Amino acid sequence: MKEADIINALKLSIDQSHPDVLLPIGDDGSIINLENNKQMVTVTDAITVDVHYPAGIEAKAIGHRCLAVNLSDMAAMGGVPRWANLVFSMPSIDPNWVKDFIDGFSEIANHNDINLTGGDTVRGPEFFTVSLQGYVEKNQYISRNGAKVGDLIYVSGSLGSAAYGLELIKQNNSALRNDFTDAFLYPKPRNNEGCLIAKYASAMIDISDGFFIDLQKISSHIGLGFTVDVSKLPIDANLINELSVNRAIEYALSGGDDYELCFTIPNQLERQFCDELSSASNLAFTCVGEITESHQVLTKGNEIYDLPKENFEHFE
Amino acid sequence: MKEADIINALKLSIDQSHPDVLLPIGDDGSIINLENNKQMVTVTDAITVDVHYPAGIEAKAIGHRCLAVNLSDMAAMGGVPRWANLVFSMPSIDPNWVKDFIDGFSEIANHNDINLTGGDTVRGPEFFTVSLQGYVEKNQYISRNGAKVGDLIYVSGSLGSAAYGLELIKQNNSALRNDFTDAFLYPKPRNNEGCLIAKYASAMIDISDGFFIDLQKISSHIGLGFTVDVSKLPIDANLINELSVNRAIEYALSGGDDYELCFTIPNQLERQFCDELSSASNLAFTCVGEITESHQVLTKGNEIYDLPKENFEHFE
Repeated sequence: MKEADIINALKLSIDQSHPDVLLPIGDDGSIINLENNKQMVTVTDAITVDVHYPAGIEAKAIGHRCLAVNLSDMAAMGGVPRWANLVFSMPSIDPNWVKDFIDGFSEIANHNDINLTGGDTVRGPEFFTVSLQGYVEKNQYISRNGAKVGDLIYVSGSLGSAAYGLELIKQNNSALRNDFTDAFLYPKPRNNEGCLIAKYASAMIDISDGFFIDLQKISSHIGLGFTVDVSKLPIDANLINELSVNRAIEYALSGGDDYELCFTIPNQLERQFCDELSSASNLAFTCVGEITESHQVLTKGNEIYDLPKENFEHFE
Repeated sequence: MKEADIINALKLSIDQSHPDVLLPIGDDGSIINLENNKQMVTVTDAITVDVHYPAGIEAKAIGHRCLAVNLSDMAAMGGVPRWANLVFSMPSIDPNWVKDFIDGFSEIANHNDINLTGGDTVRGPEFFTVSLQGYVEKNQYISRNGAKVGDLIYVSGSLGSAAYGLELIKQNNSALRNDFTDAFLYPKPRNNEGCLIAKYASAMIDISDGFFIDLQKISSHIGLGFTVDVSKLPIDANLINELSVNRAIEYALSGGDDYELCFTIPNQLERQFCDELSSASNLAFTCVGEITESHQVLTKGNEIYDLPKENFEHFE
């Protein structure tokens, strides 16, 4: 199996009927028409074995993951994802493995109307990088930095299951499959919802490192604080059944790998936001707290909740 | 040294005064204004130790290389490079090594007016991926596929020195430094020239895998042939002195890593092309042959020259 075979297999698996792609994958670069009044959004994320996923998980999940984590960043900008570039690096090539990888990659690409416009294949360490471009209407993007005192802190979907699923996979050598392992293996980026949320949100981030750390990135950075009631965190009932409420809250706060959206909504827009989102999406959106002038305060009902000790940093 | 320190050091080293970047590095994604009547060009290339460069070469050369190879792809499209995304992956972090890497990366970034708009840092295998965006005026890009029978085949700069330099580095454990090793360690992408050539060329590619293989990509792909006189290939005099003419020709044909441009010019535009390029650039441009209806023919003066046996494929 040669480089050209991998690229051809990818091309055959991904819908190529994208009129905005003037020159598709296969040249030194791609040429893309960006409509007037649109701004370009670019996100870039890499995944590598033993860092972002355990060795030996199914190839389909790896193909899914490398695009999903980028789609999630795009969702957090309020952008519409369109054009992906994949760097595919493996030390050796098993055609069945490659087929499964491409199945995972192309399924989520086609589901999101993504065109593969370029990339690179390398015989190197197990490593996958995606750079994804998309667009927003002029100045309609949402950064991490717009939250104001009094804005409500919202979370999409539910938290904690993916981190617990990862732990199960590590304990069971990838053999086990259930709702928890699926939450880790096949994260669902919230792109449709991200575009709708962007009409209301003052700040947004995707929850990849863990709710608590990621929330800090939209408050500390601009010198504000927050108060969050951890008993309001959205957690699947089966995670609570499995772990007890207290342990489940720890996973929800610090687990990471959820790829849900955390965002802030100005108080006076809440009603309108809830009306539009509940009619457009089946996903749950949960208000867990609000932005304050200073101090990061976690409560559990009326009690102060102690900060979790765990943290996640790539280089420490 | 943490992820944030690496990103901060990169930000401090690279000019951030780019009014087209509305939301710079540091968020989930970047937001970029693309002017009306411009089309987006995207290129993506990865480099990894032992595949694209030997272990132990200086960090500055690696920082230079990961951006240079992408700039070269951009040059081959006739595009203006503007916005880079870097994935930086190393198994462990030596602050001095990182500083040298950033020196190499930022020097060529600033020289080409490139903004770093995003990326990712990973504690993983030694691996660097850049995705680079830029623009062309509407439909003014040059693909690999436009060559016509009778078009003249041109090459920029000179060929073969980088491949010989790589061989010297491998033999000498990176200690030796001379013009040959510099040709490998610090390739000079031809971006200014690429934009000028694009006004005249019918097809263009950058020479990364080797002149002969890369020329095939602009002829075979569209079912055409070529005739090239290998005695006309531009080769530095010191490479010929070092190796003999015949060996130097082999390096020029098959060596790779030159990052010069190979392009085709319609016969009737040659005069105008030569006039403009000679007044705008000090670089040599050499006509080495022409596109034919079929067959790939190499000559050396009036004799047929035997095809080199070597080839380069990422996965075989």
